[in-house]
Amino acid sequence: MRLVTFATAAGSRPGAVVGEPGAERVLDLSDVAPRTVDIVGDPEALGEALAAVGMAADSAWTPLGDLRLEPPVTPGKILCLGYNYRGHVPDGVDPTADDPEYPDVFVKTPNTLGAPGDEVVIPDAALDVDYEGEIALVIGRRAKEVPLGEALSYIGGYTILNDVSDRAWQRRQSQWALGKCFDGFAPLGPWIVTPDEIADPQDLLVEVVRDGVVTVSQSTATTIFSAAYVVHYLSQTMTLEVGDVISTGTPQKLPAAQADHRPLAPGDAVTVRVSGIGELTTRFTGGTA
Amino acid sequence: MRLVTFATAAGSRPGAVVGEPGAERVLDLSDVAPRTVDIVGDPEALGEALAAVGMAADSAWTPLGDLRLEPPVTPGKILCLGYNYRGHVPDGVDPTADDPEYPDVFVKTPNTLGAPGDEVVIPDAALDVDYEGEIALVIGRRAKEVPLGEALSYIGGYTILNDVSDRAWQRRQSQWALGKCFDGFAPLGPWIVTPDEIADPQDLLVEVVRDGVVTVSQSTATTIFSAAYVVHYLSQTMTLEVGDVISTGTPQKLPAAQADHRPLAPGDAVTVRVSGIGELTTRFTGGTA
Repeated sequence: MRLVTFATAAGSRPGAVVGEPGAERVLDLSDVAPRTVDIVGDPEALGEALAAVGMAADSAWTPLGDLRLEPPVTPGKILCLGYNYRGHVPDGVDPTADDPEYPDVFVKTPNTLGAPGDEVVIPDAALDVDYEGEIALVIGRRAKEVPLGEALSYIGGYTILNDVSDRAWQRRQSQWALGKCFDGFAPLGPWIVTPDEIADPQDLLVEVVRDGVVTVSQSTATTIFSAAYVVHYLSQTMTLEVGDVISTGTPQKLPAAQADHRPLAPGDAVTVRVSGIGELTTRFTGGTA
Repeated sequence: MRLVTFATAAGSRPGAVVGEPGAERVLDLSDVAPRTVDIVGDPEALGEALAAVGMAADSAWTPLGDLRLEPPVTPGKILCLGYNYRGHVPDGVDPTADDPEYPDVFVKTPNTLGAPGDEVVIPDAALDVDYEGEIALVIGRRAKEVPLGEALSYIGGYTILNDVSDRAWQRRQSQWALGKCFDGFAPLGPWIVTPDEIADPQDLLVEVVRDGVVTVSQSTATTIFSAAYVVHYLSQTMTLEVGDVISTGTPQKLPAAQADHRPLAPGDAVTVRVSGIGELTTRFTGGTA
């Protein structure tokens, strides 16, 4: 099931999405639960949602394009991984040789959260804005000191996060926070895909298209730390709450895109697409100066 | 004015504190505003609070010790500075010679927030827990791209934060988040002191007492980045909301304390005291293992 949050005059509502790309329709699930996060990871609510989808009359559905989507959840924490996808190595070289022993983790603050359709404003202070297309895990059950073997069951769904980053601010000091935490630098969505639709989270293709050119194309089979390991590992230090988001790191850019680094500028558009999840397109606009 | 948040059977309430150390009394301010954060930085509400304090009958006051304090605010963001106090240098050496050009900023997640009286549980996964006694700024007005000359006016008050840190987790990778974000690793309080009581935020003495020994004693006159500069600088990238907390970095430990580093253990107590603000004592307990 794909779950969205959409805006109405009466406030935010949860919804279920069906249909092929470009022809998606949405069913209001506010009779099942008040918020999307209340459905994510709650098997009973999910069952009710599935039943509602099965029984809904044609007239109950709204074209997705007629709705304004909000972020599918409002996470209490947005945790992000640094280096987590192995680069290409020549034949005969052990691809795991340079693997770090532990995940490198940083935080994006709540002001970074953006809706699927929100434009990202490149502010006056920005110097070198870049994208990072990532799979984001949404926590479905409160997780504390979770064993590795049980960790997948704490994931309530999968979505997409563009970890927009200002490289110059990121590199000014040892800690990356300011480069990562400009307002709106974490567009999230468009929807949460529940785990029953993801046969293997380590077999998903992550791609980024910038202005028509594919700049990233790499499978989660090449990650150093699996989705399960990340939930397990993080939960040793902090309690993960329902709706928290863990963004699992960005794949390497393809060589041509690495060679052709250009900061994002007003008018640019970046699409992150992940097999089995969907795609998130973000447009960039100028500041007020 | 000193503002607390205290627990009642009917929920959290704001309060004003008067009296000398050990004999403080609290006046319930819930007739002025529902939450402490609604008073911080709102001149009208602050005026009403002052009037209420002036008119309150003796019987209206409750001894501070009879109340269970909560964190004075629940910040949307807890932003922290790394290196911000200059070390001692020999006579004739420019103390500013090693100043970094920019603040080093990281984030503590919401699960770290602790009340003034909360014990910090040293969890099973912890390896090397340490304290950092810091002055925390509480934002009083929404701040975005604030000029340096106006930045002080966006501070709604001052309190104390113990930036509890696991050094081993902090140093595992380039980003410090996991060492900083164990549950409860940010005790905050006991109260917020409004700016009218702080003649000069760059003339405050920060001290830490660990088990009866003073291990830190340094003035904010030795900081590299002033409170005003920090608000100005951060607001260039992110919108700061009312109630957000910026912890302004820890002074150096005194040489004897540096030479005698011992991880915090169950039974230890750490008091952070700041002239003009107050003191925050945190006890450490063991985990469940």
